[in-house]
Amino acid sequence: MRAEIIAVGSELLTPYRVDTNSLFLTDELNRIGIRVVHKAVVGDTPEEMRSSFRHALGRADVVVSTGGLGPTDDDRTRQTVAELLGRKLHTDEGILQRIRERFRRYNRAMPEINARQALVPEGATVLPNARGSAPGLWIESGGHIVILLPGVPMELHALFEKEVKPRLLQLGLTERLFTRDLRIVGLPESEVEQRVSPLYALYPETETTILAAPTGIQLHPSIWSNDAGSAENMLEEISERMALALGEYLYTTRGETLEQVVGRVLTENRATIAVAESCTGGMLAERLTNMPGSSAYFQGGVVCYSNELKTSLVGVPPDMIENTGAVSSEVALALADGIRRRAGATLGVGVTGIAGPGGGSPEKPVGLVHVGIADEQGSREKAFRFPYGDRDRIRQQAAQAALDAVRRYFLFPPLARS
Amino acid sequence: MRAEIIAVGSELLTPYRVDTNSLFLTDELNRIGIRVVHKAVVGDTPEEMRSSFRHALGRADVVVSTGGLGPTDDDRTRQTVAELLGRKLHTDEGILQRIRERFRRYNRAMPEINARQALVPEGATVLPNARGSAPGLWIESGGHIVILLPGVPMELHALFEKEVKPRLLQLGLTERLFTRDLRIVGLPESEVEQRVSPLYALYPETETTILAAPTGIQLHPSIWSNDAGSAENMLEEISERMALALGEYLYTTRGETLEQVVGRVLTENRATIAVAESCTGGMLAERLTNMPGSSAYFQGGVVCYSNELKTSLVGVPPDMIENTGAVSSEVALALADGIRRRAGATLGVGVTGIAGPGGGSPEKPVGLVHVGIADEQGSREKAFRFPYGDRDRIRQQAAQAALDAVRRYFLFPPLARS
Repeated sequence: MRAEIIAVGSELLTPYRVDTNSLFLTDELNRIGIRVVHKAVVGDTPEEMRSSFRHALGRADVVVSTGGLGPTDDDRTRQTVAELLGRKLHTDEGILQRIRERFRRYNRAMPEINARQALVPEGATVLPNARGSAPGLWIESGGHIVILLPGVPMELHALFEKEVKPRLLQLGLTERLFTRDLRIVGLPESEVEQRVSPLYALYPETETTILAAPTGIQLHPSIWSNDAGSAENMLEEISERMALALGEYLYTTRGETLEQVVGRVLTENRATIAVAESCTGGMLAERLTNMPGSSAYFQGGVVCYSNELKTSLVGVPPDMIENTGAVSSEVALALADGIRRRAGATLGVGVTGIAGPGGGSPEKPVGLVHVGIADEQGSREKAFRFPYGDRDRIRQQAAQAALDAVRRYFLFPPLARS
Repeated sequence: MRAEIIAVGSELLTPYRVDTNSLFLTDELNRIGIRVVHKAVVGDTPEEMRSSFRHALGRADVVVSTGGLGPTDDDRTRQTVAELLGRKLHTDEGILQRIRERFRRYNRAMPEINARQALVPEGATVLPNARGSAPGLWIESGGHIVILLPGVPMELHALFEKEVKPRLLQLGLTERLFTRDLRIVGLPESEVEQRVSPLYALYPETETTILAAPTGIQLHPSIWSNDAGSAENMLEEISERMALALGEYLYTTRGETLEQVVGRVLTENRATIAVAESCTGGMLAERLTNMPGSSAYFQGGVVCYSNELKTSLVGVPPDMIENTGAVSSEVALALADGIRRRAGATLGVGVTGIAGPGGGSPEKPVGLVHVGIADEQGSREKAFRFPYGDRDRIRQQAAQAALDAVRRYFLFPPLARS
């Protein structure tokens, strides 16, 4: 079964905003057994909208739209689709009453234009929207299903879960998408490809998507299948063989973020952590603390941009900075051990580097980053040269490398006294 | 003149990746005088691609595609478009030689499949790609212009700038898009709307897009016009009146980020800054340091998750934490003044709050955040209650509020001794 997603909204045709609802919808549809073969973004001109819906109906079994169900003149999805399918609109008194009640709850009278949100094409099923005033609509026509949903993500998610998914599941689609999400840090895309591509021929039923980002590579082996057991088995098998090929560079087969993995490993080992970062400017601490419950293992961090703070807050000896420079193995190690001691944490991590665009030299170019890690027994350090990209990209790579140093600490203990 | 953008790539039909090239292209096309009326995302099946390009040619004067120009079997944009337009493909010896040279430079022989990238439809103009092996193609057909570009952003940007833009400018389009980018922090969308919407009727030629995000609201008044002078004047006028209506909540009319504005104001005032943050977990420092050159004013920061670190690194008295709790006005002020003193900075900022999902109570619910700011003369503090959203959203709002406290410090000095 094939679907097309149409995002309606003139703001999505500006340079400022991208349609992200379709990512959520794609994931949900795939799990139910519906492939997304096309996505469209269209403004609020009736002519363009008609063209989009007409072509979508020519290509797909299911057409899902988001947006354009509001109460204003610019919200035209309902009318356009009704016209296109040759259905009259009538006011649904039940919806009208619910909208009026919503306003009453906020002690306001319903503006007359909101009555439009109660218009329903003949033969359409109304999908109640618990979180907003615009209900969704489900219309079957000529063998197609057209589903009109609101564009506000919170409303869309709740409405899809409660009203759309159960109806789509009733279609009894047997072939669904099964998938894994393998994530790799520290290997370039070409090397990941080289290591895993020989497996593709061994598992011709699976298709593997490879995605590259500054923070690493993702591999998504997947199968469309009507046999859940054998699909899961096959994915298990190819994932295992990929894991063997990728070794220590693979950090999850289940789509976890690196901070999730690090948080889990710290918790399992009853370890705590503190960080002292320079070039990443807080990004490492921010990553570690974006996990709910991170206060159980994250004690704190220091962002020491100035050399004075490296000394006063973390205890890096001033003559060390003078002799080796602020970007050096020695300072990375001193930051790691210094913050560990001051925070009383099991582990300390130190990051120092040159994020650019200025500050580079032939010996210490932009992109050079040192990551140190220390425990009570000792410490170790690794230097990276991130060759591509701007300040943001280098900082992202550096924060990821620092998180990876923590993961690797638990893979390859113990630390030696340096 | 109307354009449609087609993003080709099966990875763009997965739940993992969104097309962002179209944002860059939309901005560039608008400035040249071309409206984007439709965007499509399509996989690499020839049938789907044909359908997309055919419909686009029926709707738009200019069709710009990204992706599908690589050397593999899945890269079919070139062939599909040639077929659709009834053009034969021939091998361009010049391109072939350049591709071979590219490989030679990296000491590799060109794989035979890369010869495909030298295929050119009859009558097409080749757009050399300085940063990759796939050249772009410019094809005029039946009054339409079809432009095929690579999907790698770095290649796309360079190729557009050097090869596409000059050709599009030669079309001599006189009507272009003029726009402003006003950004507001601290007011909800409904209030921004209420303050500025009376202006819409006074400037019927302009259209204003309003975009809401956790970090604030953006207003984009814009005009399509063939008279640059009068368009700029009108935008200047409406922006000024919007600025008056928005007052202290407006931080830029030029699309700057809040950290850019804060960085500029700090530099202009020869002030330095240091931050002590709890619930934002490094996000505030990260924002401040994502600006190149921020080391001139940002001295450093402390992420003090544990109460012990609030005391040992920033000097918050332990009995204060015991009496008022770690999330309180007093602690926010103590963090601000403590980090200012320890870093020797002009200004100190302290943030403490409850990002959730756990840790809330009836008196101190999730979303409660205190922001303190201190200079040598004194300090002040503000409490926020961010009612919506998850941990990430609350942290984003809190970091934005803290940056805004710095901006407001320079708007409304001096601080009083508390």
